[in-house]
Amino acid sequence: MRTDHLSATFRALADPTRRAILARLASGEASVKELAEPFDMSLPAVSKHLKVLERAGLIARGRAAQWRPSRLDAGPLKDAADWLEHYRHFWERSFDRLDEYLRQLQSTEKKDDPKSRH
Amino acid sequence: MRTDHLSATFRALADPTRRAILARLASGEASVKELAEPFDMSLPAVSKHLKVLERAGLIARGRAAQWRPSRLDAGPLKDAADWLEHYRHFWERSFDRLDEYLRQLQSTEKKDDPKSRH
Repeated sequence: MRTDHLSATFRALADPTRRAILARLASGEASVKELAEPFDMSLPAVSKHLKVLERAGLIARGRAAQWRPSRLDAGPLKDAADWLEHYRHFWERSFDRLDEYLRQLQSTEKKDDPKSRH
Repeated sequence: MRTDHLSATFRALADPTRRAILARLASGEASVKELAEPFDMSLPAVSKHLKVLERAGLIARGRAAQWRPSRLDAGPLKDAADWLEHYRHFWERSFDRLDEYLRQLQSTEKKDDPKSRH
């Protein structure tokens, strides 16, 4: 079964190192060596992560054999954000409920506070 | 290594059936049996997906032994959307560039169109 694009995107984002690589590439393209340094990782380990990101279309890589710079391609991130957007009213509603609960809690605490009684 | 919350969320979303289950739960809570029907899946297969969603905090399940309804918990989706939000200017920029390219292409095509010449 071929993985659909959205699944491949979410799968690629499900790793803190891959998310950190994308964050690094947000400030400009970088070679495997440059990416390996801050993460204290082996070149093969970084290459493996880059392959997952490349298959998901989240990065594009240069063709020069020696220095194949990776650069961010944010298109699939837009699709992921669009999918999540459908659920916005759910989390906004639950934060509204939390706000309401905290307000109730505060007013109850004020009533119970001996200082406010005397 | 414990999986960080954001990785668990993205991992849970990296499957079309799990995303469809969340979409179903967006219209109200449902039992495993109710979730299995539209997807033409076995109860154990649905249960497995629900476990992944539950571990990621994306659903909460009732305690009643017979009918343990699942309901959507959108909090982790907010964190995922917040993470993606940092990259918005990248995809907006690339769509701007695409717009510009398409405009250029259109004006070139107009110039090359024999009808516009005669």
